[in-house]
Amino acid sequence: MPRTSEPGRSVSSRLLEVLFAFRPGQSVLSLADLVRRTGLPHATVRRLAMELTDAGALTRRHDGRFTIGLRLWQLGTLAPLTESLRTQAQPFMEDLYAALHQHVQLAVLEGTEAVIIERLSAPQAPELVSQVGGRLPLHCSGVGKVVLAHGGADLIDRVLSGPLRRFTPETTVDPGALRAELADCRRTGNASVRGELTPGADSIATRIVDGDGQVVAALSVVVRAGSVNPRAVLPPVIASGLGISRMLGWRPGTRIRDM
Amino acid sequence: MPRTSEPGRSVSSRLLEVLFAFRPGQSVLSLADLVRRTGLPHATVRRLAMELTDAGALTRRHDGRFTIGLRLWQLGTLAPLTESLRTQAQPFMEDLYAALHQHVQLAVLEGTEAVIIERLSAPQAPELVSQVGGRLPLHCSGVGKVVLAHGGADLIDRVLSGPLRRFTPETTVDPGALRAELADCRRTGNASVRGELTPGADSIATRIVDGDGQVVAALSVVVRAGSVNPRAVLPPVIASGLGISRMLGWRPGTRIRDM
Repeated sequence: MPRTSEPGRSVSSRLLEVLFAFRPGQSVLSLADLVRRTGLPHATVRRLAMELTDAGALTRRHDGRFTIGLRLWQLGTLAPLTESLRTQAQPFMEDLYAALHQHVQLAVLEGTEAVIIERLSAPQAPELVSQVGGRLPLHCSGVGKVVLAHGGADLIDRVLSGPLRRFTPETTVDPGALRAELADCRRTGNASVRGELTPGADSIATRIVDGDGQVVAALSVVVRAGSVNPRAVLPPVIASGLGISRMLGWRPGTRIRDM
Repeated sequence: MPRTSEPGRSVSSRLLEVLFAFRPGQSVLSLADLVRRTGLPHATVRRLAMELTDAGALTRRHDGRFTIGLRLWQLGTLAPLTESLRTQAQPFMEDLYAALHQHVQLAVLEGTEAVIIERLSAPQAPELVSQVGGRLPLHCSGVGKVVLAHGGADLIDRVLSGPLRRFTPETTVDPGALRAELADCRRTGNASVRGELTPGADSIATRIVDGDGQVVAALSVVVRAGSVNPRAVLPPVIASGLGISRMLGWRPGTRIRDM
């Protein structure tokens, strides 16, 4: 049921509602879709969508439906994470990919999820559940456990007290067991996940630290279970992670701080 | 001199003006910067910037200045080009990078410029003038010449009749000479640029074609002049370009159509 238009909602907040109605897997929307998503009147949605299209923020397809426009994509590339972290990380990710020929992912914490900000994909490796810009759960992905472990006590409490979805029979959903894993990760900087999110996919992840010792991201390699010994993958993942951290100003001995 | 606020400008267009005030190289802006850029009253800019920050479209830094937020970056990743073209192109670009260890770029036409939508960078190759999301001139970059050559007669007339900036002594700025180069590029699908944009940097570019025969992008390798024979680089660039085109549905014999 569409919400009725609230007179209190400002024009600009309505514009943002139309924009943020686009989501991963729902990136092509008709006017009717937008009306349903926002609960705004049809005429309002049409006017806002046209204005967004004129500005290049949206693009109208031949079939009349809307997608995110190239100009908004360009604007997004200005986000500091994509400017600095991705630029610094990319050569290390390429070298790690060249050495292992497995998926290589870089993710950051946003809210109660991990967001993939860069990925190199190997054709022979397992299907990944997400793509660049996509989100992964904190409690059962490699990068998720690493950023959760360094996200502070409040975040850990919030995530562990909430519902912990069981994606596979291997997913750790016991708060006590998770808490022990996270303590381990804080000590070592690394996390290994075996089939907890996708059956048959293992992830080996490590933290990325900046010059202030703050954990800013997680780097992972995802391999098909049984194809590679995760223990053999950990050293190159750690080395690449430390390389990226050095580029961000980290030096051995820097005290690690939560995100 | 700031423009005075035009009463005719709608609230939503003002919001978009604040957003699009962020540009490559100008990605961290203060409220005063935003007032100067938009010509809007200080109070209006502050209110809109706060609203954008609340929505995650902007992020406020410790020093009070604003940057593009992670949530807007995520939204940008939904643009169809980044969803389909980049995903299809990435493995080919990685393989080309592994084979050559030179910069590899993918660009599309936007307005009268080429926009880089993906790039792999080699540490030993020349400094690039632009990064992902950045723009290159059409008349003197490798990818620019390829997309210009396939951009239609109107675009070619418009670009060749406008001012053609001379970036280096090598830049071709003679409209007749450029027209001949573009005709060549339409015939072969490729363009070679030697030091026309950056002294000492050569670019070898080829077109990317979709299933309808439409040219949708250009792929290039940029090398330090003298380090590699551009003629030796052309075959792998062509092969990778055709590989990406095949992924988009192109088959040998498909009639090529302008962008």
